[in-house]
Parts: sequence; structure tokens; C-alpha cells
Amino acid sequence: MVIKAINDIASICYLKGLRNVVLSPGSRCAPLTLAFNRHGDFNIYTIPDERAAAFIALGMAERTETPTILICTSGTAVLNYAPAVTEAYYRNIPLLVLTADRPPEWLEQWDGQTINQKAIFEPHIKKSFSFPDSFEHKDALWFSHRLVNEAINCCSSLENGPVHINVPLREPFYPEKGEKLVFDKAIKLIDEPAFENSPGKDTLLRLSEELNQPAKIVIVVGQHKPDKSLIDALSIVSLKLNIPVVADIIANLHGFAGTIRHSDAFLPKASASLKPDLLITLGQSVISKNLKLFLRQHRASAHWHIAQAGHIPDPMQSLTRIVRMSPTHFFKQLLDTGVTPKSQEFMESWRSLDEKVKENFNSIFTHQPFNEFQAAYRFIKSISGEAKLHLANSMAVRYANFVGLSSQQNNISVHANRGTSGIDGSTSTAVGITLTCAVPNYLITGDVSFFYDINAFWHNYLPTNFKILLLNNHGGGIFRLIPGPSQQPELEELFETQQPRSATRMAEEFGFSYFKSTGEEDFNSQLISFMEDENRAIFEVETNKENNQLFFNHFKSHINT
Amino acid sequence: MVIKAINDIASICYLKGLRNVVLSPGSRCAPLTLAFNRHGDFNIYTIPDERAAAFIALGMAERTETPTILICTSGTAVLNYAPAVTEAYYRNIPLLVLTADRPPEWLEQWDGQTINQKAIFEPHIKKSFSFPDSFEHKDALWFSHRLVNEAINCCSSLENGPVHINVPLREPFYPEKGEKLVFDKAIKLIDEPAFENSPGKDTLLRLSEELNQPAKIVIVVGQHKPDKSLIDALSIVSLKLNIPVVADIIANLHGFAGTIRHSDAFLPKASASLKPDLLITLGQSVISKNLKLFLRQHRASAHWHIAQAGHIPDPMQSLTRIVRMSPTHFFKQLLDTGVTPKSQEFMESWRSLDEKVKENFNSIFTHQPFNEFQAAYRFIKSISGEAKLHLANSMAVRYANFVGLSSQQNNISVHANRGTSGIDGSTSTAVGITLTCAVPNYLITGDVSFFYDINAFWHNYLPTNFKILLLNNHGGGIFRLIPGPSQQPELEELFETQQPRSATRMAEEFGFSYFKSTGEEDFNSQLISFMEDENRAIFEVETNKENNQLFFNHFKSHINT
Repeated sequence: MVIKAINDIASICYLKGLRNVVLSPGSRCAPLTLAFNRHGDFNIYTIPDERAAAFIALGMAERTETPTILICTSGTAVLNYAPAVTEAYYRNIPLLVLTADRPPEWLEQWDGQTINQKAIFEPHIKKSFSFPDSFEHKDALWFSHRLVNEAINCCSSLENGPVHINVPLREPFYPEKGEKLVFDKAIKLIDEPAFENSPGKDTLLRLSEELNQPAKIVIVVGQHKPDKSLIDALSIVSLKLNIPVVADIIANLHGFAGTIRHSDAFLPKASASLKPDLLITLGQSVISKNLKLFLRQHRASAHWHIAQAGHIPDPMQSLTRIVRMSPTHFFKQLLDTGVTPKSQEFMESWRSLDEKVKENFNSIFTHQPFNEFQAAYRFIKSISGEAKLHLANSMAVRYANFVGLSSQQNNISVHANRGTSGIDGSTSTAVGITLTCAVPNYLITGDVSFFYDINAFWHNYLPTNFKILLLNNHGGGIFRLIPGPSQQPELEELFETQQPRSATRMAEEFGFSYFKSTGEEDFNSQLISFMEDENRAIFEVETNKENNQLFFNHFKSHINT
Repeated sequence: MVIKAINDIASICYLKGLRNVVLSPGSRCAPLTLAFNRHGDFNIYTIPDERAAAFIALGMAERTETPTILICTSGTAVLNYAPAVTEAYYRNIPLLVLTADRPPEWLEQWDGQTINQKAIFEPHIKKSFSFPDSFEHKDALWFSHRLVNEAINCCSSLENGPVHINVPLREPFYPEKGEKLVFDKAIKLIDEPAFENSPGKDTLLRLSEELNQPAKIVIVVGQHKPDKSLIDALSIVSLKLNIPVVADIIANLHGFAGTIRHSDAFLPKASASLKPDLLITLGQSVISKNLKLFLRQHRASAHWHIAQAGHIPDPMQSLTRIVRMSPTHFFKQLLDTGVTPKSQEFMESWRSLDEKVKENFNSIFTHQPFNEFQAAYRFIKSISGEAKLHLANSMAVRYANFVGLSSQQNNISVHANRGTSGIDGSTSTAVGITLTCAVPNYLITGDVSFFYDINAFWHNYLPTNFKILLLNNHGGGIFRLIPGPSQQPELEELFETQQPRSATRMAEEFGFSYFKSTGEEDFNSQLISFMEDENRAIFEVETNKENNQLFFNHFKSHINT
């Protein structure tokens, strides 16, 4: 039997601009699978492991800024979506999650693949909808259309996020022989265009007056997508008004040469004189624990966060004002209203510390045993042109943040799952982004993240524009580098959880070119071959964990001296 | 800093008889990891992928009938437990899930690995507890002790199930140098011994009178652990009273020669004369869709389900009475009270159909192309002695159910994740069971289940008493064998999701002996070598999906003629 309301989901999704569908095989979800496939205008990807499928969908949505449609069958399949849905929730990435379900009368009846799916992603979902399970009442079809419109609108209303529609389906749900699926091109849409909050004139005047008071302002930018107009606005503000702009690598602000990018390296020894009177923040999470600790210890007397919508956390424990407007407009209007320049000396004290770290990098690896930090450093320095750099949790993203990207690398965008900082989907997310763009994509990852998310590769769409730098220290290397676990006798067995695996076999299995180095010399030559290879490729850098630890300690004590 | 209340969790768990701990590496959970490790009397397993870890824990708990302790760090790690926790919930398997969390003041603050973990497994958890985050108040320690006692008791009170304790932890949470962890051996316990419901004399009399009325009674046993006393009671009831006992392979009733084990094969063509007046059910889910369909179509006028506790579903749509007592006691007391024998003819009509299927199996594979069903058949027939047979979802468990085990194979216990029938943890669950016993363990699985749960092997505890029969048809073969999807043009791409992988590399990587067959002749010789191998071993049987489909159709039309 063909269910019109199900086909209409595909029609509405198409007319509202959704294009990418990631589905996992199943029978209960067949009406959804067939509707989206036979519609003919969607890009369909079928990925067997729902955990990987959802992270791949997340990557696609991050890149396209349009909801990816996820489709799976009933049962624990749905639960395997939860890690990616939660990452999407905390990072405001739009996903339209369609889960097939048994009809209500068959829940809790010992039927196969049947669990309680209603609102199953709560509280890590923008909204949960229940699709009607019967279309006998005359209002049911209108209700289903309205619901799908609402769900898609909700994915991008005020802020992006994941939205769930649970779809109960009764047998028979396969089309009979000869039965055609029809797609309504004139189906009713409810349009909700994007809009921007902006303050009234009085508010703006008051804010700009207040901005004239403090002598020392610091702007901190958390995770943010690449945004040329934001970079332009911030660079003018910073240079004209002597305001240091401090940003991690995931803020994608490296295109502005003046960005303070090494705060994680110099702040542990910095003096209280770096304390701002006013702290202005925007974007999402900050990688640098040292930055957060410094700003908590030296709390600004005022702290404004600029964001159009959403819940505003207080990670520096100093928040005093939430400004509900677009950060770009805030900085543009701030300038337009003529705020007077701030202390040059204060600006210089931040800049000089940042410069010193940059200079120290030239010699920090000299006379040191080869180590994974060095590998990450060399690799990052070797990337140029338009590219995407994916950083897995947890040491890969930290190394990369210490290194930073230069302003010449302004065509590189940086991606990392820092909404929940899980290791469960770093590779899949990178695969998802790669599938939606033609430029080279590079992933830096560790062995634990890599093997954890190995099903990222288990499908028929693996792209060739995808290269992986795998830092294999045979265990969770981070536990040796942070103070607590490295001092426990359980370090190797229960924290690092040592494992002997190599990526050789995975590379073969999934058609990757494979490069390997175990020391500094073959690293350099292999890096060149790896970067020149035209296939997808893995470069496995095997390092000694004690050397990694020795160097990391050396780095921490010498980078800011 | 050492947190006494955390160490006391380990003390209470030990004193209450819990022994197995499956943990995944993390820093936030370090106080739990250290407490359970330094206690010294627990078996500790560290498994990196939390999804696999939780299924391994589930297997251990299924085997030991004692809660396995699960420990993970905060964030999406926790969500990766959800599939196994849900399976445990629907199959009444006890798990004590300890998840580390940030303290409440740091939730929703863009901190790494921080999500909303309170009651996160609801509604698929028996109970969710929040561990105190401060111990300043004088009642806090008593509260924490009481809570841990309650949680462990809840794992096994009335019926078994998973219970969650979310444990917020503030830094510093690593012991300082020289700081010792102390374990209190006289800590206060709250004991809740197991008890059994039994009906009063009057009720029993009334039930036995009612049991005298119907001429035709059928007993259907759903998924059940091996239980000698139940088998004894049922075999006496069946033989003395002419009551057919119908059971899938997962009922573990094959030790009773009279069990009707082929209902899934003969019922599609059976006449309405098999309809019982009274249907008595016990155990959990039933694999055979044909059995469910027959009993729904030919509804017994009375249907009693026998279970001590828990929610009682109505999968046959005929339930009329819930009898709250142990099934073994029900059948024993039923006999004791002298119920008169039922129709011999009715009993014979079930028995003769079952016998016919058994006989037909002798010739059903003759002149047929080699196929995976045949491989499963031969493999199952070759198992003898004390062993455990694990059946993955979805075709493996169905094939095995068609084949059945003989009464000579009464030392084989059968295991399958039929609570939610997911493919996400079949291998891990089998690994978990294998880790807690010394007898040979055999898993029959398909390629999709196998690759889905590949991280079942990613740890340092892989046992040698573990053998896998891998039916590799390079895709989700089930979709070709069930009517709906096999008739759609999307069959190969979107349902089967064809994939070219082989287990060769995985076998190498994880130290399995590897055997392979592609046809009937090498199957026989390889099967012998495989069964004789003393290492853990994989036997990959590559089959042609069209042949599998052809044979399955042949089987369905000839097995019951």
C-alpha cells in the first residue's frame, strides 16, 4: 500500500530545499526510503551503522547549513543516532530525523525492533513530533503536512538544531505491483524566512556609551563557522580600537593576521595585567582550558555575550549581559557609533605574548625526540590552498590549537565535534563534510578515535578527496599528557588502554593509499608522497608515547619563555 | 582528593556479590575506575567503544545472573550505552550503570563532554538515581550508601533489569601522591532477598478447576534461559496431559524431546484444528512470526500468561489472565492438583506436523545449490557436548530456529538479543558471555551484524573458546528473503546495501584462525578443521544471494509437504 502522507514528507522536504538523505537499511522504514528515493531529486546515501550514518549526516548539514534527512528503522537503530543528534543539538546543526516505528498498539508487546521512540532524543533535540498513524479522519492529512512544515521550520528557526519526527507505520507498507508513488509539486508550504534581531536606536546608543567606559576590552571567539564578514568586522574593530581578539583554531578567525591564537600556550604564565575590564564573547565552545581558567581567575567586571538566539552559557563565570543580535552587526554598528580607541599598551601586551609563542615554535622541536605533536605541526604547516581541516577529539584538536593556522591559510576551514567533544563520530563527521565538497579534506586523528569510529568507512561512497593523518601511539595518549591519570599506576592499563593495532588492514579494506612513518626522517619523505597522492590516503605516524610525553612537558615549559 | 562515598560504591557492590566491571577509558570517571580497580576483588575489563562495552557487560550479566557494573565518562559516551541498556530492559538483564558527570553548575556551559545525563536512559531503565555531588551535610554519606543499596536491589527486585546511577564529580578527583583508598568491609547493607509469588489455596483450586474444562491446551514458551526444573515440569505436563509444548530455539527447551520446535515451518499450511481452547504462555519474545500469526488468527478463547512479575504483553491478541507465579511451580502445582488429560488426537496433530518437518530436513537440501541456510544447518548439527550457541539478528537466528536443536544437544544453551532484536550488539553480547565461561561458544552471524559490531573485538581480553560462523552474502540478505523489499527495484542498493567486505583482515587483526568456504565441498572439510581448531576462529561462508533466495523459497514450499 502506498501512504500518501509519507510521500508528501518527501515533497515538502524537497520544496523547502532539503536535498541530502542518509538512510540505513530496514524494512519498517521502507515507505520513507521508497518515497525519498523515488522522488528522484534527493542525494541518497545508505550507511549501515546508524551511529556513523548520523555523524555523516551531521557533517553534511554542517557544511550545507541545510537539514540533512536521516531515516532509520525502528528499535535500537534509533538509539544509535543519539550521539550525533546530541552533538547537533549543542552545536546548532540542523538535522531532520525520521524514525520509523511500530504503531502504538504494538509497543511493549515483545515485538522485534520495538522500543519507546516517542521523544526519545529529549532533552537533546529542538523538538519531537509524532506523525499520525491513521489517515481516516479528514484533518489527518492536513495535520501531517502542517507537522512536517513545522518540523523543517524548527530545524532553522532562530537557531539551527536537530528535530525528530517519529513515524508509526502499519503493515502493509510496501507498494503493490504496479502501484505508483505520486509527488505533489503544489503541496502547501508554511514559510518561515530567517530574520535578524537588532536592538532599537536607544539600546544601541546606550550600549555604545557603555563601550566608551572601559580602557581594556578583550574579545573571545568560540567555535564558529568561517565567516568573511565577521572577520572583516572584527579585524577593523581590533585594529582601530586596540581590542585583542582571542580565538582558538575552531573559531575560523585565522584569516585575520591580528588574531591572538596562542593563548592556550602563553596564558599559564601570563600576569594579571592581561585582565580585561570588559570581556566580549561570541561563538560557541572554547578549546583552551588555560583561557577559560585565566578569565575565571581574572574576572572582567563586565562580560557581554553576543548571539542572536539560544541558551547562553557562562563558561568564564563573569557573564553580565546578553546582546541579542548578530555579532557582525554588533561590531559594525559599534564602529559606526564611534567608540573611542582603547589602551594601545594593553593590546600590545597580548600581541607580544602571542608573537613570542609564534617565534618559539621555530626552535621548539629542535633536539627533541620525534613525537606526534611535531607530526601534527609539520602536517598543518604543509596544508595550503582551499581545504578543510578536520580535528578529532581529543589530542588532535588540542595539538592543532597550539599550532594554529596562519593568516595565509585563510582558505582552510576548520571543523571539530566540540559540541560534546566525543570521540565517537570525528571520522564520520569528516566523511560527511567531504561528501558535500570537492576541495581536499584533511583529518587529524588519534588511534582511539580512529578505531572507535571505523564504520565511518563502511559504505559505498568513500570520497578520494579525503586524507587522514593518524597519530598512532597505541592507546589514549591524552591520559599520559594530563596531570591526574599520568600519576596513577593504572595509567597504561585502565586509562591509555593500550592496543597494538595499525591501520594497514583498514586502509587496504577501504581502498586508501597507505603511508607510514616511525621517525622523523621517513616522516618528511612520506608526508610529501601522502600529500601528492591522488587517492584517499591514510598516513599513519607511529610514535613513542614516552617521547610524546617528554616533548609535551618540554613544550609547556619552553613555549612561553 | 579521595572521595570516600565513591570508594564505598565499590565496597557495597562487592559485599552484595557483584564481581564483573566493564569500564571505558575516561578522566571524569577516574574516581570510579580507581575505586573498583584498587578494591582488588573485581574482574576489570576495559573496552574502548562504549556501545560494545555495554553489550559485553550485558552478556556477562545474562550468564552470571548478577548485575555487571558499567563505568564510563561523561558526554556522548553515556549515549553509546543506550542500545545495550534498552536490550537489558526488555530482556530483564541486570546492569548497574555508573556514569560520571560534571557537577550541576557546569551543565549547559559549553564544557567538553557535558550533556544532560540525569535519567538519560528513560524510559528504558528500571530506575535512575542521582548520586549526591556534595558530602558536607551529615546525611550525605548515609544517603549515598542507601542509594547504592537501593540501586543494586532494584537490579534484581521482582524482575531483573538495568539501573542507572549518574555520578557528578568535581575536580580535584585524583588521589594526591601517597593518598590511599580505604574500603569499608563492614559498611551497612540493605538486604532484599529474592522471593516467589504463589497463589493462595483457593486461587489454586479455582485455577485447577478451570484447567479441567478445555479439551485442547497449547503451551507456548518464549525466550527463556536454560532451566532444568522447568524442562522437567513441562515434559511431565506435556506427556501426562497431552498438552503440546511449542517453543522456539531461544526457549532453551530442546532438552525435552517432545517439544514442538518447527512451528515456524509447518504453521503456514496448518489447519484451524490446531487452535487451542486455552493458550498458556510463559517466557518472553517468540521468534516465529508464523506462530504469532496463527494464534492471532485462531484465537484461543482463554489465554493465560504465567510470570512472577513485570509487564505482560499480549502478542497473540488473546490474553485473558495473568498468573503471578513461577512457571515451574505453576506446572508442578497444576499436576499435583490432578488435572485430567486432554485430547490425545489434538496433541498428535501438532506432533505429527513437527515430525514431518524433521523428516523433510533429511532431504530438503538435496539437489539444491549450496546456500547459507544449509551452512547453518550443518554447523548446528555438528555441535555437541556442553556449549553455548549465540544467534545474531536477523537471518542467523531465524535459520537456527527453523533447524532447531535436538534433545541430544541438551547441554547447549542458546542466546540471542531478542529483547529489541537489534543487530548492533550480537557479537559483543556473545563475547561477554564467553568471557564468563570456559565451554566452547559458537556465534552464527551475517555479514551486516558482524561488521556493524566489529568493535566487539577491540580490547585485550579476546577468549580462545569463541568460534564464529559468518554467513557472508555481502549485504542484508534478509531483505531478499522477506516479501516486501524483495519485490522493489531498490532491493540491492537501499535494502541489502551490498558490500564487498570479507573477514580475512579482521581475523588477522584480532588473532582469529580463519577458515573460508565458497561451496559445498570445501564447506565440509573446512567445517571439520574449524571445529577442531584450538584457537578462536572465524569460518567465513561466502554464498550467492540468489541461491540463498532460491533455496529459501524451496524450503518454504517443501518443508511442510
